[in-house]
Amino acid sequence: MSTTPRTGVVVTGPPRADAAEVAVLAGYGVATVHEALGRTGYLGPDLRARQDGVRTGGTAVTVLCRPGDNLMIHAAVEQCRTGDVLVVTTTSPCVDGLFGELFATALAHRGVRGLVTTTGVRDVAELRAMGFPVWSAAVSAQGSVKASPGAVNVPVVLGGEVVRPGDAVLADDDGAVVVAREWVGETVTAGRARLDKEEAARRAFAGGELSLDRYGLRDELARLGVRYVDGSTPGEPA
Amino acid sequence: MSTTPRTGVVVTGPPRADAAEVAVLAGYGVATVHEALGRTGYLGPDLRARQDGVRTGGTAVTVLCRPGDNLMIHAAVEQCRTGDVLVVTTTSPCVDGLFGELFATALAHRGVRGLVTTTGVRDVAELRAMGFPVWSAAVSAQGSVKASPGAVNVPVVLGGEVVRPGDAVLADDDGAVVVAREWVGETVTAGRARLDKEEAARRAFAGGELSLDRYGLRDELARLGVRYVDGSTPGEPA
Amino acid sequence: MSTTPRTGVVVTGPPRADAAEVAVLAGYGVATVHEALGRTGYLGPDLRARQDGVRTGGTAVTVLCRPGDNLMIHAAVEQCRTGDVLVVTTTSPCVDGLFGELFATALAHRGVRGLVTTTGVRDVAELRAMGFPVWSAAVSAQGSVKASPGAVNVPVVLGGEVVRPGDAVLADDDGAVVVAREWVGETVTAGRARLDKEEAARRAFAGGELSLDRYGLRDELARLGVRYVDGSTPGEPA
Amino acid sequence: MSTTPRTGVVVTGPPRADAAEVAVLAGYGVATVHEALGRTGYLGPDLRARQDGVRTGGTAVTVLCRPGDNLMIHAAVEQCRTGDVLVVTTTSPCVDGLFGELFATALAHRGVRGLVTTTGVRDVAELRAMGFPVWSAAVSAQGSVKASPGAVNVPVVLGGEVVRPGDAVLADDDGAVVVAREWVGETVTAGRARLDKEEAARRAFAGGELSLDRYGLRDELARLGVRYVDGSTPGEPA
Amino acid sequence: MSTTPRTGVVVTGPPRADAAEVAVLAGYGVATVHEALGRTGYLGPDLRARQDGVRTGGTAVTVLCRPGDNLMIHAAVEQCRTGDVLVVTTTSPCVDGLFGELFATALAHRGVRGLVTTTGVRDVAELRAMGFPVWSAAVSAQGSVKASPGAVNVPVVLGGEVVRPGDAVLADDDGAVVVAREWVGETVTAGRARLDKEEAARRAFAGGELSLDRYGLRDELARLGVRYVDGSTPGEPA
Amino acid sequence: MSTTPRTGVVVTGPPRADAAEVAVLAGYGVATVHEALGRTGYLGPDLRARQDGVRTGGTAVTVLCRPGDNLMIHAAVEQCRTGDVLVVTTTSPCVDGLFGELFATALAHRGVRGLVTTTGVRDVAELRAMGFPVWSAAVSAQGSVKASPGAVNVPVVLGGEVVRPGDAVLADDDGAVVVAREWVGETVTAGRARLDKEEAARRAFAGGELSLDRYGLRDELARLGVRYVDGSTPGEPA
Repeated sequence: MSTTPRTGVVVTGPPRADAAEVAVLAGYGVATVHEALGRTGYLGPDLRARQDGVRTGGTAVTVLCRPGDNLMIHAAVEQCRTGDVLVVTTTSPCVDGLFGELFATALAHRGVRGLVTTTGVRDVAELRAMGFPVWSAAVSAQGSVKASPGAVNVPVVLGGEVVRPGDAVLADDDGAVVVAREWVGETVTAGRARLDKEEAARRAFAGGELSLDRYGLRDELARLGVRYVDGSTPGEPA
Repeated sequence: MSTTPRTGVVVTGPPRADAAEVAVLAGYGVATVHEALGRTGYLGPDLRARQDGVRTGGTAVTVLCRPGDNLMIHAAVEQCRTGDVLVVTTTSPCVDGLFGELFATALAHRGVRGLVTTTGVRDVAELRAMGFPVWSAAVSAQGSVKASPGAVNVPVVLGGEVVRPGDAVLADDDGAVVVAREWVGETVTAGRARLDKEEAARRAFAGGELSLDRYGLRDELARLGVRYVDGSTPGEPA
Repeated sequence: MSTTPRTGVVVTGPPRADAAEVAVLAGYGVATVHEALGRTGYLGPDLRARQDGVRTGGTAVTVLCRPGDNLMIHAAVEQCRTGDVLVVTTTSPCVDGLFGELFATALAHRGVRGLVTTTGVRDVAELRAMGFPVWSAAVSAQGSVKASPGAVNVPVVLGGEVVRPGDAVLADDDGAVVVAREWVGETVTAGRARLDKEEAARRAFAGGELSLDRYGLRDELARLGVRYVDGSTPGEPA
Repeated sequence: MSTTPRTGVVVTGPPRADAAEVAVLAGYGVATVHEALGRTGYLGPDLRARQDGVRTGGTAVTVLCRPGDNLMIHAAVEQCRTGDVLVVTTTSPCVDGLFGELFATALAHRGVRGLVTTTGVRDVAELRAMGFPVWSAAVSAQGSVKASPGAVNVPVVLGGEVVRPGDAVLADDDGAVVVAREWVGETVTAGRARLDKEEAARRAFAGGELSLDRYGLRDELARLGVRYVDGSTPGEPA
Repeated sequence: MSTTPRTGVVVTGPPRADAAEVAVLAGYGVATVHEALGRTGYLGPDLRARQDGVRTGGTAVTVLCRPGDNLMIHAAVEQCRTGDVLVVTTTSPCVDGLFGELFATALAHRGVRGLVTTTGVRDVAELRAMGFPVWSAAVSAQGSVKASPGAVNVPVVLGGEVVRPGDAVLADDDGAVVVAREWVGETVTAGRARLDKEEAARRAFAGGELSLDRYGLRDELARLGVRYVDGSTPGEPA
Repeated sequence: MSTTPRTGVVVTGPPRADAAEVAVLAGYGVATVHEALGRTGYLGPDLRARQDGVRTGGTAVTVLCRPGDNLMIHAAVEQCRTGDVLVVTTTSPCVDGLFGELFATALAHRGVRGLVTTTGVRDVAELRAMGFPVWSAAVSAQGSVKASPGAVNVPVVLGGEVVRPGDAVLADDDGAVVVAREWVGETVTAGRARLDKEEAARRAFAGGELSLDRYGLRDELARLGVRYVDGSTPGEPA
């Protein structure tokens, strides 16, 4: 990855994960996909949903901007297709409002499913009203310039995870997760298995079963030397 | 407190504050209880409500986990009774998603009133849908392991305040507050007095009375040397 | 500005921006006003709306408090008139809950349009219920004292911007912005022009026009040396 | 602990840990003592040494101040004796410079060994010159008032750990650690054993032994399913 | 202040505070000057000295940059004279390394006394070696562009304080402080008085006098209701 | 990169950058290498040198740990050779003291050049005394467990940059930078050119030349519409 030039380039037509499979993953939810990936791919708690109750996903069109500069988002719009998610970050940390309603209008026209960004966004009331979902590190009205080159569709890093163009990016109220495009198929399978397992556990717990028993954790506690102490006796410390 | 071992132990059946009194306190709201306690007990602004408009409270079942490890929450579920609130923290700061919908399902079955945690939570959409209220330092899908011992029902610290098992923990949109179980009775009384005082002030202020007059603050301002300066004269600095 | 004493003073009756013009600006929204000002005046992403969907504005009554001390807010209430917005900060950073429902009740009686503060606020459920909008750096139940002098209606700094008494302060879901009272008139004009420009762009983008074309950015990209690379060829790096 | 009033009180002559034992602990270093305590007692990475190469310790005189207010430090000086360490925190977070050279002069006269505080300190050049060591969350010249009551010699919380008056507090370049006064004797023993164990490990590692072998971790890695993969073959992923 | 355009302008030859008086202030130290100003002017604890033991000061040449862009520092060098201090901030927060050894070389040639910046600096080893002192919010090697206009010698805000061109800026190990150029003369006088008062207090405290007595604080404690409680009795809480 | 399993694996004998070329890069310094790379590769301002005046570099042995768990560092020691630098991060943020003197002793025996970590380190006084340089996000005595699998010699992310095993990692007082192993040769050349250019600029600036002239920035300022305004006239705003 480090061998790709990261600035001054717009990569067109990168390979994309299979749209139907990405749609299935989007339905699973972020936490389930993250678990199905062996607890990887989560883009971190700093990227917060700016609306409630939306679950979406798509293939990444990635954007690397300079701080305070959204020139490359303008270039990225043209590279977006139906089923994409725009993924934006900056060469150094920046929470200015690089994205707002006008970009969302253009992206909605192209069938883009949402935005995931380490920057700020603005016009959040309008974004909610028009139903264009965003996940961002901040809400900020601070405006930007269009003065410096960055890149479109090169690998970028958000929350310590690499997102490449065409990878699947899923998002809901818990944040966002990336699935490498080569892994989407097997993640569909693994996620399905995990959903089934969760559903069974949900029924069991709703009926009063304890996870200590269901997951065999009493033995683990004993192995680790955890002791049970009666705290109800007068004079006992607590 | 420092004389209790803090790891490798599950304390069972600790004394709990009186359930009826805790229910009364829960109705008062966090800010009122905090004031009634002489402005102590607040668990800090980092613990944010993950839903709107819920006011709850209960007796604490406390959990101390290792960072990234939720093993002891599994052990804690069994220690929970109707009217409890689960209170979780870690031995060093961690905002991973140690808690989610499956735990909430198990706790709801046992009559637990909510969760207060310095960690992250996940499945927030599902938690809202099922009506299980949570207060947490973050929303995070990041998964956890079950590998290291911690403790259940030992004193823990959240936001600089000690929470012991059985203490009353109240929470609403303003955050969460702890009341030592020995103080619950007198806090009910003090909180009632404060509510009455607030209601009288509310009526007065709604009618146009100034707090400067109601609280005798004009004299205090004068004692402190605060001067009134006419800012409307042309040429005056501002 | 630095030549005004900043403590121990309450300035009465400062000049205020024209109320009708401020009302027009309030309707424009924060991002538009910020752009109309040449991308200045934004009070920063830390001041978050504590309710959804409110757009308001007014003339600033400014308050400078000591950390953990709300004495000067009591003094400021008396200085407020219909159409004002209360603007609060502290001499060093503090997110305690210096403001709550009782203050809001008094301010609502006087026709105040809202609060913008770098501190915390409490009673947020009640504030939402009564329709008094607040923008703050935190929600906190932590109570305050009334022990130390500060100032009312002196210039204050929030988010790196100076707010003087009588300046226009506008706020919505994107945060808050200040307009110097001398600039309100021309900002009304500039904002109107920007709104028109945005509306035209919105229609164009909704119809599929690209901002690359509309803003002439293809030439700018070329000037900056940005290259387009075909990413669809097998063997290409990505 | 929660049953003690925390404000408006100065507790005189609290029991103190044994001075000779505290002196021994001070020589062990913070990391060793923290390990000897079962990895508890560390006051957190935010409290940084403001000089290099000092290792000290003493019995805690604790101070709880209001934010921006150092009145209670004045009251605390009188409670200090030879061999004490002053431990300061505030009722809500504050990094103002509540402490400086003049306090250090008074404390040095009384034989106090240093300061550990969650606030800021100032006059750091003078403090270094006079050899009075401080551990603080910040360096700040911001001055304070003397207007509100707090407490001296009540339990306080720093970095999630409770410090009671008379407890041993040790500090070095790694930060600070508290040992409950009842545990000082056994911590001296446990720390000595740990130092011996560390010295033996140091010699072994300096001679090339691997901790994998010394601590039997190869079996643990195998139990956890860790695989070894040859990364030197051409075509292997890395 | 808000009426000055803040971008696209280089102001030449602004009035400067008297050099001799600024030199006197520089010798007083930051904490003393801040106190002499009535506890104002401090640029905050985030601006840290990047060397030990330097005390300096000068007249401000101010620079407002875009994030990640140091173009205006290039323009500012030409505006600097012997006895100036360069003061840099950005239109939104940025800790990239906008300043390094080459700028310092050019400034040293012009007799500039140091740099105070809310951004990062780089080449810190070289800066220390050449004796050019810097105060900054970060150390960062992250490079910058020269693409967007900002301003030189307009009022800027650092740490919530306004710094105008020609104001006195003083810095030492405790951080940096600004004195409005109109106030420099009286601050010299007030600072001298404070130094004398501090020296007298230092001698008194070194001799064992208590600040409780020297400042009459025993009465203040009593007025505030602070009680003294004997903590040495067995059975007493602590 | 995303196609490599990231947990439960130790990769042995990965390809390494050429040792002689890495040594040359280490001598260039972090800022120069970062610029030679087109302003990429910097591991961010959070990773601070824990000693002064050290410039080093080597080939990366990478470690991915669970938060609060240093098991994989034990596994990594065995994979280290002369000329390596150990590079550590965690699956979610953690500043516990995962590394200290004993690890450094083992690594020094193997000829390792230093440590770069997003976690905390402890025993910093001992590390300085033994001359083992470390760059870390924190100093912390907080101890760790050895309970959960991670990985050795898989790609990791620090400060938004990918570090692969065998890549060159350079560090000095400005932080740390990574150079992909395939780029080391050309970076040696580009860095040399940059050093020459910097030396020429240094001489020019020391002699009074302005960067405005040397870099042709006057034209750029004019193109951007920057105006020069005489600030010395009475009545001018400033």
